[in-house]
Amino acid sequence: MSPLTRFTNDDAICLISKLEDSYFALPRIQHISKAYLPSRPAIYGLIDRLFGVLFPGFFGPQDLTRDNIKYHIINELQELNTALARQISQCMSLDAGGPSDAIEHQAVEATYEFLLGLPRLRALLATDVLAGYQGDPAAANTDEVVFSYPATIAIATHRMAHIFWNLKVPLMPRIMTEHAHSRTGIDIHPGATIGPSFFIDHGTGVVIGETTVIGERCKLYQGVTLGALSFPHDDQGQIHRQYKRHPTLEDEVVVYANATILGDVTIGKAATVGGGVFLTRSVPPGCTVSNKAVELKYRNRPNSLDRGYTADWQI
Amino acid sequence: MSPLTRFTNDDAICLISKLEDSYFALPRIQHISKAYLPSRPAIYGLIDRLFGVLFPGFFGPQDLTRDNIKYHIINELQELNTALARQISQCMSLDAGGPSDAIEHQAVEATYEFLLGLPRLRALLATDVLAGYQGDPAAANTDEVVFSYPATIAIATHRMAHIFWNLKVPLMPRIMTEHAHSRTGIDIHPGATIGPSFFIDHGTGVVIGETTVIGERCKLYQGVTLGALSFPHDDQGQIHRQYKRHPTLEDEVVVYANATILGDVTIGKAATVGGGVFLTRSVPPGCTVSNKAVELKYRNRPNSLDRGYTADWQI
Amino acid sequence: MSPLTRFTNDDAICLISKLEDSYFALPRIQHISKAYLPSRPAIYGLIDRLFGVLFPGFFGPQDLTRDNIKYHIINELQELNTALARQISQCMSLDAGGPSDAIEHQAVEATYEFLLGLPRLRALLATDVLAGYQGDPAAANTDEVVFSYPATIAIATHRMAHIFWNLKVPLMPRIMTEHAHSRTGIDIHPGATIGPSFFIDHGTGVVIGETTVIGERCKLYQGVTLGALSFPHDDQGQIHRQYKRHPTLEDEVVVYANATILGDVTIGKAATVGGGVFLTRSVPPGCTVSNKAVELKYRNRPNSLDRGYTADWQI
Repeated sequence: MSPLTRFTNDDAICLISKLEDSYFALPRIQHISKAYLPSRPAIYGLIDRLFGVLFPGFFGPQDLTRDNIKYHIINELQELNTALARQISQCMSLDAGGPSDAIEHQAVEATYEFLLGLPRLRALLATDVLAGYQGDPAAANTDEVVFSYPATIAIATHRMAHIFWNLKVPLMPRIMTEHAHSRTGIDIHPGATIGPSFFIDHGTGVVIGETTVIGERCKLYQGVTLGALSFPHDDQGQIHRQYKRHPTLEDEVVVYANATILGDVTIGKAATVGGGVFLTRSVPPGCTVSNKAVELKYRNRPNSLDRGYTADWQI
Repeated sequence: MSPLTRFTNDDAICLISKLEDSYFALPRIQHISKAYLPSRPAIYGLIDRLFGVLFPGFFGPQDLTRDNIKYHIINELQELNTALARQISQCMSLDAGGPSDAIEHQAVEATYEFLLGLPRLRALLATDVLAGYQGDPAAANTDEVVFSYPATIAIATHRMAHIFWNLKVPLMPRIMTEHAHSRTGIDIHPGATIGPSFFIDHGTGVVIGETTVIGERCKLYQGVTLGALSFPHDDQGQIHRQYKRHPTLEDEVVVYANATILGDVTIGKAATVGGGVFLTRSVPPGCTVSNKAVELKYRNRPNSLDRGYTADWQI
Repeated sequence: MSPLTRFTNDDAICLISKLEDSYFALPRIQHISKAYLPSRPAIYGLIDRLFGVLFPGFFGPQDLTRDNIKYHIINELQELNTALARQISQCMSLDAGGPSDAIEHQAVEATYEFLLGLPRLRALLATDVLAGYQGDPAAANTDEVVFSYPATIAIATHRMAHIFWNLKVPLMPRIMTEHAHSRTGIDIHPGATIGPSFFIDHGTGVVIGETTVIGERCKLYQGVTLGALSFPHDDQGQIHRQYKRHPTLEDEVVVYANATILGDVTIGKAATVGGGVFLTRSVPPGCTVSNKAVELKYRNRPNSLDRGYTADWQI
């Protein structure tokens, strides 16, 4: 190795052989001689490309006109058709333990269904953008919502991932929503079902679990959890998976900052859940739920008024 | 399209035509044949460049010396002057519905004012870095604060965006702070007014609303919301915008983790707000506010001591 | 400058000279004529490379086979050996005020120790991945945990940074964990000591302080803070640093979403801390602590049922 190195030849040989042993002793955390992993960078690139088709001009190339837009779409759809089918096929092959003609066929079919749904998806996303503008007094116009709001990234990525989820594409939907999670702090499981005109303000720390159902015109603020309460285990001590364990929000529900709603409960139509509320029960329609104000302790500390930096800032 | 494809020629033509229709039926979420969008990547690049001018050596090129620093600045300022004016002009043109000589002039003027303010901005940022070191026992020195703290990215980006906000540059300030939000989890609206020696520790989930006012030597922890309480609507059901609806923090206020302060209330000088407190009222100077300890339920579960992974972990 | 520019020659000269003055008047926030800063991009690249060695095939090149894996490792270790030693040496030189032969030697030694520990580190990471799968009903398999969970990025980065921390490498461990913080919203100080089989679900907003100690098979949810209660100051008003001020979690502790535990307290073996709990006291082994349900206020608002977007959504 490098001239500076502390490694003798023997050290190096020993380390390399220990690492090799470790790879084969711990196969869960390597992926050697197993083909067909999808490519994260390729999937991130596809997400960007899809944003360019869904919100042309706002994402992707900026020089689109009524004259060149058709050529742009044709080109993008061709690229997407090939590249999506390949990533989907790799995800399906990984899940199935290897490739097959049937998987190739399914991947092409899923890509076809997904791309055919793009016009319908745009109509849905238009309702979300309008909900963002109407729900936030700090939004100057809808351009600002499309162009700079994390909700647009998180919700549009979720809506795409959810279509792939319904098409039974494994892994890729989760990679897509975790990418949005990393960019926005908003963690929506691809399995969650979300109605039109959905808005999340600020959004950092929001968690929406796999079996959550959200109606139309709902709004969430930062730090809201729609989660599960606890996990039943079977006789072998394995947790159950895939049963309905997250909340249902009916239409027009608003949940304020840092509220936590756990379990398969129903928050009724037009109900409002206040900031910081911790809920594990259903709420009837039209009802407002808030914490009975926690009693506050006020302690006067007259000296603190001239403390500068030196005093003990204490809770 | 690809040989594998499921698309017939008719399918493809039909999809493309539906997408085109969708673009013109839903114009809010496209930007076709409308010039003058700013470029997000260009603005992100300008932010990086400005960090290199504000914290030379820490950001941007590392080989700066007393001898070459002048040439570095001259070069950077020339680039910034041209590139900032262009992005600002595009934001202003977008807002005004098209370009004009008056807008060009305003953009150049705003760039001039901004660049002239850089030395003053550095003086302010130096107070923030020192506040970070003095406010966090885990900080080994100020280099660590400049070089690795998310607060430095979030606060410096906010202070730049706030100058553009005051210069009436539309959209760009919001793009800047949302970029910092994505990188740090700290969401500061560019309209917020923040005094010197400001520090945010950890920071993920912090939200500071548009009309917030923060005095000198204040400190916030992760998850703190300085937000609005509710939005009045006019007769047409549109929400009011741009009135004072967020808190005022006087000098030396400390707000601990996950506290939420909502509405146009005043937290008096040197007051302390405890972790998790939910406040919608003003607090007098020098006062400490904390939750009266929520009564805790303790349940002993002796068997859980040998549960391993198989037991039911339940709230 | 540019033809459009508002700057006269005098303006430009004056601004440049003010900036230069500012650099030398505020030396804390520049790094001019001071060599030996580490490179953030280089360190981020090393993290990626190390992920490729720890989880081969999942990160880094995907075409690894039983035949080529040995050549891949040899190549990666050579690159890592040289590049790690260089970054470590720059961090140590920065800390010591300049380079020296002794520092070169220490950097090479620290690199050697770190690389020799990689097989042991893999064994630890395998326990974390399994804990992730076993602790989350939404995980389809361990591939999904390795490939798409933020916990994998945050915990593996922490475990590497913690080894460097124990080897007394300054600054670099913090740069590493802040990079993971930016990508995942999970902020783990490199000083924290964490046992095997550790899992963090969702994770956004998690803060784990410098002197935290976590046992085996613990699990945290999003928004959990393991923090310090307050900082004692010395006679000069400087805060004390580096004493034990964060919690200890014994084995098999579970902490649910948004709970805050502050101070040097001990959460006993197999204890469970409920969502949103604010704790500053120790908890005995096997005990479940939850908030006595905050009394909720339910207000019926029958008209809200037909409010649409126009009504006043109010907390």
